[in-house]
Amino acid sequence: MNRHIARVTGFAALFATALWAGGLRAEGNKPTYQSANQIIDAAPATAWRTPDPSQVLYMDLADGKRVIIELAPHFAPQHVANIQALAHGGFWDGLSIYRSQDNYVVQFGDPDADDATKAKPLSAGAKPKLVAEFERSSKQLPFHRLKDVDGWAPETGFSNGFPAARDPATQTAWMTHCYGTLGAGRGNEADSSTGAELYVIIGDAPRGLDRNITVVGRVLQGMENLSVIPRGPAPMGFFEDPAKRVPIKSIRLEADVPVAERTPLQVFRTDTVWFDRAIEARRNRRDEWYKRPANHIGICSVAPVVRTPK
Amino acid sequence: MNRHIARVTGFAALFATALWAGGLRAEGNKPTYQSANQIIDAAPATAWRTPDPSQVLYMDLADGKRVIIELAPHFAPQHVANIQALAHGGFWDGLSIYRSQDNYVVQFGDPDADDATKAKPLSAGAKPKLVAEFERSSKQLPFHRLKDVDGWAPETGFSNGFPAARDPATQTAWMTHCYGTLGAGRGNEADSSTGAELYVIIGDAPRGLDRNITVVGRVLQGMENLSVIPRGPAPMGFFEDPAKRVPIKSIRLEADVPVAERTPLQVFRTDTVWFDRAIEARRNRRDEWYKRPANHIGICSVAPVVRTPK
Repeated sequence: MNRHIARVTGFAALFATALWAGGLRAEGNKPTYQSANQIIDAAPATAWRTPDPSQVLYMDLADGKRVIIELAPHFAPQHVANIQALAHGGFWDGLSIYRSQDNYVVQFGDPDADDATKAKPLSAGAKPKLVAEFERSSKQLPFHRLKDVDGWAPETGFSNGFPAARDPATQTAWMTHCYGTLGAGRGNEADSSTGAELYVIIGDAPRGLDRNITVVGRVLQGMENLSVIPRGPAPMGFFEDPAKRVPIKSIRLEADVPVAERTPLQVFRTDTVWFDRAIEARRNRRDEWYKRPANHIGICSVAPVVRTPK
Repeated sequence: MNRHIARVTGFAALFATALWAGGLRAEGNKPTYQSANQIIDAAPATAWRTPDPSQVLYMDLADGKRVIIELAPHFAPQHVANIQALAHGGFWDGLSIYRSQDNYVVQFGDPDADDATKAKPLSAGAKPKLVAEFERSSKQLPFHRLKDVDGWAPETGFSNGFPAARDPATQTAWMTHCYGTLGAGRGNEADSSTGAELYVIIGDAPRGLDRNITVVGRVLQGMENLSVIPRGPAPMGFFEDPAKRVPIKSIRLEADVPVAERTPLQVFRTDTVWFDRAIEARRNRRDEWYKRPANHIGICSVAPVVRTPK
């Protein structure tokens, strides 16, 4: 049973390096290593943040499982406002996950959204038409840059905790499609998304979608409840048979959920020295298992790190 | 239902570009586009290959589902020879998938492999000790290079159909960890893998594993039977409870399977002009849905393209 390969998802159980800022630690002649986990565990309270309950979605499936999502209003203000109105109005309650495509996405909302005679009306306050929010000016956006090269964008980094990319030439920034990214499905028209139909990435990062669709947030916890949904029929994974769809009990804003039913979470900040140290430990793993540190990390290699507040 | 995001897995349903080698095609003043799918569908028989049945594994799960894997003896000759002996000897028959970790791997074989008193004996012809095969000389290996930059390796491309990377400075090459990659689990010692314990990547490409473990092949078909296995307990997804493990009916070499029980497959070659054209169509999608061609592709963005022979 110990004949395994080391865990690499998120930072949990990631291993060791002493090459982060500050250099090698040594006890006598023997360097000691600090893993990303150890760095995170030793970080002070200020290295953590509590997401705004008005920007957190609880997706409660009919089988009792919960998926927790953080919205990114700084990247997609109009879509997030719509999603907040839809959640507040109970738009998704009783709807379903109606698509599961291997190594790509699950998609949920109203399967009849495109049929005017059957579509569920949007909730009060939700607009039927929005502008596309594929990218935005980077001038006012915080951006904690990763130093490694990325083939898809001139720069990558984190903005308010979300994986993102930036182009200095155009002074624009956008969220990258990573495992767990939440986006707003659209038709062929760039401005045809409302936030009512949403998708979550469940496979290898499909970065070719970047700047082609509006990204609205990211799953913080419960991805494993989405990623194991049996795949729908090829080629695109849509469940035409309603019996195959996965029923959604409700999607609510955390702010609308009674405190007793909440799942409080803290998220490891992405703009601190402790984050930088954890990233460096991840770029160059020097635990016993790893034989060749990569000296590299990708923007989508870094899963959100969450904990239950003490 | 049409309010969806376009499919990007593999080449199926990928869309159009006219910017491949040969430049724009035009009818009158209107350029016409050819999608990756169209390019693949129009390719001649010589653009396809039939894998060697002695290098194909059928993993038949107890529930009747089949996963088809191609082995890569040119990268890991000793491990592949062991795996062939183990499959021929029925080593995995009645064993299980005993690990499922979200966004990372499923792992299978003998959960008691590390307990000398309980471990299942290896099949005749399988060696109990092998050298690590993390990388090898690139001098004799074919390598059909991708032109795009990759942050993890100096060069990426395809070698005998497998996604790979290469370092001209050291004249070495290795297989990259992508969705569907098959590797040989090991303990802390580099040479502690035998091929008896195997893993398949079910999440975002964990490229940090490259050159840290022996990669032995890639799933050609049936990934969706592995990727939806409910995840085991955190942090590493091992099912300590035998009742939670997924039973394996058998893993056999295609060559050992009666013809009537085979699933014949052809694989789209990765060293032809048709492949190059499909890649270019994928790098720059110009169908109606895509608004901004990426002008880039990653080595792990390219899933194997298979078909049933006519």
